[in-house]
Amino acid sequence: MTDTGTTHGPVGSHTDLLAAYSLDELRERHSAKWREYPPEVLPVWVAEMDTPLAEPIKAALVEAIGRGDTGYAVAGGLPEAFAGFSARKFGWRPDPTGIRLVPDVMAGIVEVLHLVTEPGDRVVINTPAYPPYFYWLPRIGRQAVLNPLSLTARGFRLDLDALEREFAAGAAAYLLCNPHNPTGLVFGEDDLMAVARLAERYGVRVVADEIHAPLVYPGARHVPFGSLDAPAAARSIMLVSASKAWNLAGLKAALAVPGAEARSDVTAIDVEVSESAGLLGVIASEVAFTAGEPWLDELMAGLTANRALLGELLAEHLPEVVYQPPQATYLAWLDFRALGLGDDPAEWFLRRGGVALYPGPKFGTPGCGFARFNFATSPDRVSAAVRQMAASSHRQGARGMIRALDAL
Amino acid sequence: MTDTGTTHGPVGSHTDLLAAYSLDELRERHSAKWREYPPEVLPVWVAEMDTPLAEPIKAALVEAIGRGDTGYAVAGGLPEAFAGFSARKFGWRPDPTGIRLVPDVMAGIVEVLHLVTEPGDRVVINTPAYPPYFYWLPRIGRQAVLNPLSLTARGFRLDLDALEREFAAGAAAYLLCNPHNPTGLVFGEDDLMAVARLAERYGVRVVADEIHAPLVYPGARHVPFGSLDAPAAARSIMLVSASKAWNLAGLKAALAVPGAEARSDVTAIDVEVSESAGLLGVIASEVAFTAGEPWLDELMAGLTANRALLGELLAEHLPEVVYQPPQATYLAWLDFRALGLGDDPAEWFLRRGGVALYPGPKFGTPGCGFARFNFATSPDRVSAAVRQMAASSHRQGARGMIRALDAL
Ligand SMILES: Cc1ncc(COP(=O)(O)O)c(C=O)c1O
Ligand SMILES: Cc1ncc(COP(=O)(O)O)c(C=O)c1O
Repeated sequence: MTDTGTTHGPVGSHTDLLAAYSLDELRERHSAKWREYPPEVLPVWVAEMDTPLAEPIKAALVEAIGRGDTGYAVAGGLPEAFAGFSARKFGWRPDPTGIRLVPDVMAGIVEVLHLVTEPGDRVVINTPAYPPYFYWLPRIGRQAVLNPLSLTARGFRLDLDALEREFAAGAAAYLLCNPHNPTGLVFGEDDLMAVARLAERYGVRVVADEIHAPLVYPGARHVPFGSLDAPAAARSIMLVSASKAWNLAGLKAALAVPGAEARSDVTAIDVEVSESAGLLGVIASEVAFTAGEPWLDELMAGLTANRALLGELLAEHLPEVVYQPPQATYLAWLDFRALGLGDDPAEWFLRRGGVALYPGPKFGTPGCGFARFNFATSPDRVSAAVRQMAASSHRQGARGMIRALDAL
Repeated sequence: MTDTGTTHGPVGSHTDLLAAYSLDELRERHSAKWREYPPEVLPVWVAEMDTPLAEPIKAALVEAIGRGDTGYAVAGGLPEAFAGFSARKFGWRPDPTGIRLVPDVMAGIVEVLHLVTEPGDRVVINTPAYPPYFYWLPRIGRQAVLNPLSLTARGFRLDLDALEREFAAGAAAYLLCNPHNPTGLVFGEDDLMAVARLAERYGVRVVADEIHAPLVYPGARHVPFGSLDAPAAARSIMLVSASKAWNLAGLKAALAVPGAEARSDVTAIDVEVSESAGLLGVIASEVAFTAGEPWLDELMAGLTANRALLGELLAEHLPEVVYQPPQATYLAWLDFRALGLGDDPAEWFLRRGGVALYPGPKFGTPGCGFARFNFATSPDRVSAAVRQMAASSHRQGARGMIRALDAL
């Protein structure tokens, strides 16, 4: 594939989307994933994918550019497009007339918390947590209350008892990340109903970050929080976007979706906020939600293969690493503690292995000894990254080295 | 020109950029200007232009789409590109290493006020004022102090005495809009030096919204506030963007540019904020500032012609309207008070004339009886808009009608 707008032909194997570009082609990108570190570093950190755009999205964007259609954004057909996608994919059709455009999911969370909580209010989040939560909650004068997921033999799970204690201690809102980044957990309907009952009992508003919902693997099922038959679900507000599943984060469009009883909260979002979204993001997202499912299916096939490949590679080259394959997302939350690389294994792999993972400690205390690995790239690059990590961790004995490093 | 990505050929006359698209083609756009009102309304309200993109910008965007380059934004070469443009155009080269990326100018103002003022602080703005200032200042807990421009026989002017009273009464910051929207005023170096001296005397931080700076007509000269030889200028922070001059508002990229002594304030802008900019905005803006000047020169020639045309049309069809041709921007701030159309003439023209202007009262009290007219469109459409406005205001006597309307 050349780096100009040539047509991406029909694809055969599962991994064609993920392997469409060579490393040299990817290094031409201007995005954070490819520009944050020097070119010799293999980046598997931030949640961007190495895929080409879906053909219908590409076509719509090129047409918009031809029209000079680069002015201010309005939601247009996007709410309706999402409602249709949600109906087909999750079996729940929100009322599109209550949906509002926001620039991105994080801005949407900020906006919604602004409207449904007060300054000083406590907002519960589950750790490990998407790092920007730690920046934006204090930034808007809300207090982040950390509720760690519990680490069981079968991976991370929601700790409902601890959650109830936090709710009882006076939380105004619960910022639920489902599917969960970085663990890839998809919360089951039972857990979500239990959350809804607790939220109802303690008067806690649920704000659900469902950005990863289109990226659920076979075997798990995403339940939109607002689809639950419970009063707290009707009062919940979801934030959704095509940005993770179709790789559109830089185009700036997301939606705030109210449960049946939260319409007036969401429609209170000011037009100033909606107009600060990106118009090309709106155009691309509308196409993603209406015509993007074939591409998404192909992507999920490739990601499913990579999810397994990563497990095989780790078992072979870094057997000490604990890897619970995610139920959703292209992110693997890797436990490096047995390797003795210290609190921030990503730092080790960056400096010694030339591989950039996302540092675990940025996800909060439970992230110490962990790092997040983004496998939305070619199998070759997944393999190269694991081999480079393995080589760097084995070279001269990691334990000794980390001590030497810490002493620097 | 078709509405797909066909190449826009070499242009001959001044107005080719502004007349490149037919009304039918423009109605295919998804942007706010073209979607807010029904298709039979002629929109001359929000600050979007009806131009095609500059060729090098179009090419860079199509290439980015071909690369799948739609992940998170980093500033890349944009600060350097702006520094070069500012040096060539305004004779002042800011240090690019102190410049930070923000999603748009309004978000940049919010960010900077967050860093250099405290909750509850007073921030002076000149009215009539860009309407979102009225939303965002209270939204971030800052108090907007309104300092009206004074209306003289030669148009609007800065009222330095009133400004000094506001500063003396305890303002923390002055949000200076230069060139000024909606009046099109370009503040002269004398006025700006007087502002800098007052700001120094009263310890007021100057935050300058210079988004319209590339759009200055021959006869006036933009002076970047930070370029002045004054301590308050060194401590000032400017917000700039390619979004108005090259019509990229929907792509979401702007820059915070520190004066020589404000570097640490600007570099305190968090990476979370910069990463919420739009990547295609960064890519397009970098090209605009490095290779966009020929297009801008051609645009200014067309706008210069339209600025005169609007005056001729008003003199002929609506001689009661007071029109002071702007020194910068493609926005005309029209005084309809002699027509007796009430506080909001835009409402009249929308309902009776099928023309959407930007309502004057949204710019604050001095906007009553005014409306803003965007002439960045073809001469034909400027003419059609004025004729429709004239026909609607003359039909059956406006004064009587407005009373009837108000009674509804
Ligand atoms: C859980 C979660 N929420 C929000 C975001 C950010 O989304 P946006 O770029 O729309 O703010 C991400 C990005 O990876 C994410 O993983
Ligand atoms: C004076 C002024 N400031 C800011 C803006 C908005 O810029 P942005 O879209 O980058 O927030 C505009 C848009 O017209 C403007 O006229």
